[in-house]
Amino acid sequence: MAVLGNKEYFKGIGEIPYEGKESDNPLAFKHYNPEQVVAGKPMKEHFKFAMAYWHTLCGTGGDPFGPGTKQFPWNASSEPIAAAKEKADAAFEFITKMGFEYYCFHDFDLVDEADSLAESEKRIQTMVDYLKQKQEASGVKLLWGTANCFSNPRYMNGAASNPDFNVVAHAGAQIKIALDATIELGGQNYVFWGGREGYMSLLNTQMKLEQDNIGRFLNMAKDYARGQGFKGNFFIEPKPMEPMKHQYDFDAATSINTIREYGLQDDFKLNIEVNHATLAQHTFQHELQVAANAGMLGSIDANRGDYQNGWDTDQFPNNVTEIAEAMLVLLKSDGLEGGGVNFDAKTRRNSTDLEDIFLAHIGGADTFARGLLVADAVLQKSSYEDLLDKRYASFASGAGQNFVDGKLTLLDLYQHAQSNGEAKQISGKQELYENLLNQYV
Amino acid sequence: MAVLGNKEYFKGIGEIPYEGKESDNPLAFKHYNPEQVVAGKPMKEHFKFAMAYWHTLCGTGGDPFGPGTKQFPWNASSEPIAAAKEKADAAFEFITKMGFEYYCFHDFDLVDEADSLAESEKRIQTMVDYLKQKQEASGVKLLWGTANCFSNPRYMNGAASNPDFNVVAHAGAQIKIALDATIELGGQNYVFWGGREGYMSLLNTQMKLEQDNIGRFLNMAKDYARGQGFKGNFFIEPKPMEPMKHQYDFDAATSINTIREYGLQDDFKLNIEVNHATLAQHTFQHELQVAANAGMLGSIDANRGDYQNGWDTDQFPNNVTEIAEAMLVLLKSDGLEGGGVNFDAKTRRNSTDLEDIFLAHIGGADTFARGLLVADAVLQKSSYEDLLDKRYASFASGAGQNFVDGKLTLLDLYQHAQSNGEAKQISGKQELYENLLNQYV
Amino acid sequence: MAVLGNKEYFKGIGEIPYEGKESDNPLAFKHYNPEQVVAGKPMKEHFKFAMAYWHTLCGTGGDPFGPGTKQFPWNASSEPIAAAKEKADAAFEFITKMGFEYYCFHDFDLVDEADSLAESEKRIQTMVDYLKQKQEASGVKLLWGTANCFSNPRYMNGAASNPDFNVVAHAGAQIKIALDATIELGGQNYVFWGGREGYMSLLNTQMKLEQDNIGRFLNMAKDYARGQGFKGNFFIEPKPMEPMKHQYDFDAATSINTIREYGLQDDFKLNIEVNHATLAQHTFQHELQVAANAGMLGSIDANRGDYQNGWDTDQFPNNVTEIAEAMLVLLKSDGLEGGGVNFDAKTRRNSTDLEDIFLAHIGGADTFARGLLVADAVLQKSSYEDLLDKRYASFASGAGQNFVDGKLTLLDLYQHAQSNGEAKQISGKQELYENLLNQYV
Amino acid sequence: MAVLGNKEYFKGIGEIPYEGKESDNPLAFKHYNPEQVVAGKPMKEHFKFAMAYWHTLCGTGGDPFGPGTKQFPWNASSEPIAAAKEKADAAFEFITKMGFEYYCFHDFDLVDEADSLAESEKRIQTMVDYLKQKQEASGVKLLWGTANCFSNPRYMNGAASNPDFNVVAHAGAQIKIALDATIELGGQNYVFWGGREGYMSLLNTQMKLEQDNIGRFLNMAKDYARGQGFKGNFFIEPKPMEPMKHQYDFDAATSINTIREYGLQDDFKLNIEVNHATLAQHTFQHELQVAANAGMLGSIDANRGDYQNGWDTDQFPNNVTEIAEAMLVLLKSDGLEGGGVNFDAKTRRNSTDLEDIFLAHIGGADTFARGLLVADAVLQKSSYEDLLDKRYASFASGAGQNFVDGKLTLLDLYQHAQSNGEAKQISGKQELYENLLNQYV
Repeated sequence: MAVLGNKEYFKGIGEIPYEGKESDNPLAFKHYNPEQVVAGKPMKEHFKFAMAYWHTLCGTGGDPFGPGTKQFPWNASSEPIAAAKEKADAAFEFITKMGFEYYCFHDFDLVDEADSLAESEKRIQTMVDYLKQKQEASGVKLLWGTANCFSNPRYMNGAASNPDFNVVAHAGAQIKIALDATIELGGQNYVFWGGREGYMSLLNTQMKLEQDNIGRFLNMAKDYARGQGFKGNFFIEPKPMEPMKHQYDFDAATSINTIREYGLQDDFKLNIEVNHATLAQHTFQHELQVAANAGMLGSIDANRGDYQNGWDTDQFPNNVTEIAEAMLVLLKSDGLEGGGVNFDAKTRRNSTDLEDIFLAHIGGADTFARGLLVADAVLQKSSYEDLLDKRYASFASGAGQNFVDGKLTLLDLYQHAQSNGEAKQISGKQELYENLLNQYV
Repeated sequence: MAVLGNKEYFKGIGEIPYEGKESDNPLAFKHYNPEQVVAGKPMKEHFKFAMAYWHTLCGTGGDPFGPGTKQFPWNASSEPIAAAKEKADAAFEFITKMGFEYYCFHDFDLVDEADSLAESEKRIQTMVDYLKQKQEASGVKLLWGTANCFSNPRYMNGAASNPDFNVVAHAGAQIKIALDATIELGGQNYVFWGGREGYMSLLNTQMKLEQDNIGRFLNMAKDYARGQGFKGNFFIEPKPMEPMKHQYDFDAATSINTIREYGLQDDFKLNIEVNHATLAQHTFQHELQVAANAGMLGSIDANRGDYQNGWDTDQFPNNVTEIAEAMLVLLKSDGLEGGGVNFDAKTRRNSTDLEDIFLAHIGGADTFARGLLVADAVLQKSSYEDLLDKRYASFASGAGQNFVDGKLTLLDLYQHAQSNGEAKQISGKQELYENLLNQYV
Repeated sequence: MAVLGNKEYFKGIGEIPYEGKESDNPLAFKHYNPEQVVAGKPMKEHFKFAMAYWHTLCGTGGDPFGPGTKQFPWNASSEPIAAAKEKADAAFEFITKMGFEYYCFHDFDLVDEADSLAESEKRIQTMVDYLKQKQEASGVKLLWGTANCFSNPRYMNGAASNPDFNVVAHAGAQIKIALDATIELGGQNYVFWGGREGYMSLLNTQMKLEQDNIGRFLNMAKDYARGQGFKGNFFIEPKPMEPMKHQYDFDAATSINTIREYGLQDDFKLNIEVNHATLAQHTFQHELQVAANAGMLGSIDANRGDYQNGWDTDQFPNNVTEIAEAMLVLLKSDGLEGGGVNFDAKTRRNSTDLEDIFLAHIGGADTFARGLLVADAVLQKSSYEDLLDKRYASFASGAGQNFVDGKLTLLDLYQHAQSNGEAKQISGKQELYENLLNQYV
Repeated sequence: MAVLGNKEYFKGIGEIPYEGKESDNPLAFKHYNPEQVVAGKPMKEHFKFAMAYWHTLCGTGGDPFGPGTKQFPWNASSEPIAAAKEKADAAFEFITKMGFEYYCFHDFDLVDEADSLAESEKRIQTMVDYLKQKQEASGVKLLWGTANCFSNPRYMNGAASNPDFNVVAHAGAQIKIALDATIELGGQNYVFWGGREGYMSLLNTQMKLEQDNIGRFLNMAKDYARGQGFKGNFFIEPKPMEPMKHQYDFDAATSINTIREYGLQDDFKLNIEVNHATLAQHTFQHELQVAANAGMLGSIDANRGDYQNGWDTDQFPNNVTEIAEAMLVLLKSDGLEGGGVNFDAKTRRNSTDLEDIFLAHIGGADTFARGLLVADAVLQKSSYEDLLDKRYASFASGAGQNFVDGKLTLLDLYQHAQSNGEAKQISGKQELYENLLNQYV
């Protein structure tokens, strides 16, 4: 089987070359050079860039104020399997032209859901066979799979947190099928994003029961997958709100709390999304740091929000400073545990040329590449690490070291302070750190 | 010792009577009737209303764009202890005139901080003796004490999370003294609000070390207080931001995660503040529910934010619906564990009459009283609980019950869904619940 | 022609009675009594409640994370005109059962857009004839009409502000047809909401040209309608953002600036929406006051946003205090100029019972009714107006009066201040005003 | 008189050199090269960088949660005039070491307010004489002056919008004195920022009277200054909120509306502040564009907000992309009308070294310099302008041109659309524009 399908959907666009930052060619990478070694490994291994099936192949631009705008040539067939195969052809054409090595999907991104579970399962199995062949032909791999348990009207009141057990069971069935597909395709990870796990109104909600049900449900899913031999990570993807008024996996700290409460810490890590971070009033960098501190920095959904708007715009990353700060966390934490950088981003509703999909991914990959190069330079060439070590030096010896080692009591602190007198004022020098970073941007 | 000091600061304002909602007297309660029994106990026991020393006695109205506006007659003396005693006299005059039974303080609300720790400790001990007498004379009790480890410039980079161990030790000393004072005054609880525990910039911050230090520190404080015989609760008070860019105790879920991570769950609960909840993009009701679900609903800081502004306005509560929704959580969770309702609220900068302090507290207490009455009526008279039980009925028997009891696997869910077919659509009926609540507001 | 169509869509729900606030019947008004006279006229004349065709008949619950959930029985036919007539039947059944007297529509709410302008115009004319008969049979009137120039993909870059003149022309044609329909149906007003008039990115936008084009366009539309004998008001409906990153009619003040800049002040007023106000970081009350101050308070789109979320949730009004504050502005400004209160609100995606549509409108109408009663009581029974007059009394005589009359210069102020000495401090007494309002809620 | 005063406050810090971006010296400009010609004039003329007296000399780091942290050596004297002169010495030392040519002040930044207006006026006159000498000695100029009519408790209810005429008069007197000082010092502009012009609660506010009073007041001030021979611009500085709940000069569009409503358009322009823009949910670029479109782009207050926090953080600019987008507007609008770039920014409360003030201004100036270089490169070297022209080409000829020339009616549009058929879909290509800009960042 060839990598390309019968049709070439992105005609006239060949492989995306690395041409360096002086290039005038908008269809070339300026900074992302897959083989370039940074901090000990090639860029492509730092990132494991993945295409998101849903936005790139399925997202035609609908929003609350109007339907889709984009005419995708792979959407022509009205026969579900034929349409799904054309979409898969387009997907692999895109991924390989971009020079990426990974993709991510929800179950019903691959093929339309059928009227019955049994028929849906059959369709997915058919597509798994097809994708397996395409993976082999192309070398492209599955970064992670997931199940869409939020779009179908049956999930309007939640999936694992639904007040009706029958819906919970349906979600269980769907996730069983998605896990099977992920395993069969050699998926490296499996993601849970609880799109409707939360509430529209606390007035009609038994929050504790719903959250306990989620805890039970995640354990069941994990047990099933492990029983099927799945060795990868499970990821929870925090998001504070939208579509629900409140979502239970609000942010990294909340999700870590859930993971601990339900005993999932040996199997679950976090998939951090930029736009979800900023919707939760955090920086992307912050969410990565929280995850890394807990040993749970699993994967990244790359996009960006709009700093003046309050919904999930899922724009492609273009803020070099924001990404450079994030890459500082990444490099200092020794990278992502199992995951990669998935472009969970969509071209604007009015970006209707097929070419725009390439431009958007090129801009996104270049932004991450620049961020990595900046962060590496800051760590390698500047006094950044020295400054930081010096700032916390009092904990590296003497009484401070004893404090860190748990050898002191409150009375020890009291006596230290009494005998020590007022501490010397030490500037935080935030502006110096900011200038230093900016010198490498 | 008489309850009133030598001067009567709030001349012409006597005890605040309950006159019922038809009263034209602005200096009378319309809804808060301390002895009125609601849901099995008097209002005053539901609430344990407390005056906040800092806002009510110390807050003269300064903001980032101008100094204080309010001339408090108890601030006349330039001698620290004399001034502190006058302030204490005013405090107890106010509390008793309001008919409240509790107060809360930070260490240096009571008396100005001195130049040395030793002298500060002496001043506090002097004031503890004085307050003890006033407590005995009036029957007023200490709901909780705390230490202000955020105002003094020494804490500009944090207290327990300071990069300089010497400052950490100073904070320890200060908290030791504040714990001693709280214990001596029979304080029922002790609060930690980490005003500067967080960061201004993640660039110059070792977050993990700082948070681990906080964990160690809280354990030391707890061990010391327990060693001194303190039986009350420790409370963490979440706040997402301000004055820091990010504060580590962001919200209830984050704080519970911290409590669990550092093994504090047997001693610590949460003190939930309305304005901090909304700054974190949560409702007050939500934060109470999260705390209650974890068995950690300890106490309330009553105030409100401005829904269109993004800083801590600490206005007095006046939104009956917001409080009624909160009281639903309270009544269903069997109340606050150890704590009460502390008016952590300040009259506006341009509310400069002494009378305004009374008007504000009356409005706040009435709002809580109405909220409680509404919530009680909803629970007692309406179909609210029945509607809610019915909504979750599928988990009370059959397969749903088995799910809750942990008897099912993912394959069981799969088989249930396969055999059960599509679940019936069930409306969430949010508008019905909202109308129902509104009928009792 | 009968008011009801061939089918009764809302079976089992009769006319909604007024039963007063003690009623347990969820399908009865508790506060909205259409004939009850308040401040000199019946409630129904204060409000002129209108049903919004789009949400109530067309909105099936789709959001960015899933398709519609609601099965509307009037949507069964696949033949456009037949479907449109069924929808109209449902509309008039609903309006009359609610006891409302008005409705509002966009052109393509009435009937699906056709493939050509000519065919679309024909369809609309057919439906105008049909609606005219239904209006006559029922007494229901058209509060306002408008054109949907934002949903169709052709408007993805704007309508009157589109960078392509051909799209501008199409918008012009569509609005010409919508104006004809509105005039033919006796519509009392015509609304412009520029759903995509704004930008996604300022980088690719010539803002001045786009705004000037809007100015020209609105003048053309006005001239045309006046030429056709239209006597009603034109309304601009401010909204700050969504779907665009920035919308040109950001808020009331911005829209008034536009109206003045393009010389539209004799014909245009504002249609203020609650959720749009709060998205713009204003209260609803504020936006009404700004409009009233300019003599441009035309109409209201009644709904509410979520105070913790940042998108247009269009929930039904349920906040009595928010509406009471708004009604204070309304009563003091002598009401709406030409418009009414249109329920531009949608039941939640998971409110899937047909009954929920009634519950939602009942709750909304009751909230407005309570707000009006509260505001009227505050104005009639309380000292509110006296307090306010007294606060500004210095401008009612002497030098202050001279200032207001424009008789003073800056030097006069200087001399007044020099001779007058420091002004007496006067409390703003915000808490007193808040308590006073709350006493009537 | 020498430029330096008797003491050298910033010892060890000499003139800040331009050393280019490879320099490791944190006390050197990397991008700001005052004499470097960009787009036809030297950088220093594009920017006219100014030091803000209030933050740089007076701001010691107080915030709502603690007092100032910074010990400024020029604040030692307790004698007002001596202290004021030391502060002026420090100011001119700083400005000249930075290589800036301008400064800005509020009246009582220069010297502490006295107990009486007469005494305050005398103090200011003394300082004006002193500053005049320092200006002559150094060549430093006054970019603009203003009066602080918001900090003093007398203004707690507003200044020109105060409900008490006596306070309005006091504000008038104060502004008269500040205008005199500005004129005497050759100030190029005069700014109005209405710090407390707005409301805390609309309940106790007669908004229309207050706004009309502001209109009258601004006209009086303008008439006075013109009468005294002032030839410069008056600037209004928009801000949406803080300290007030709502401020009347909410954003650029609102302020332009005010300027037009009160007939001030021939004399007033806008002073746009970055942090005020983002607090109003606008980008900085947007506010500049709105001002430029109205011919009112007067001056810039350079700083930045925090994208995740909701108050006025006034941080130093460090976001190159944000400033580059702004500089695109500036270059395309032919620059600022009369004003310059004033660093209305403060070092963080925990940035307590005197050196930090330099680091912060260096980082800010470099950020503006980079932004200008990027914007110039985009305009000169890239296809940006061509792309934009092409996007709007339909208005440059034919029917589109006729539309722009006002020659068409709505019926013309209707007929054009009827005959023209459906418009061709044209991508907005936002991602291309974003990548293009990023290639030059």
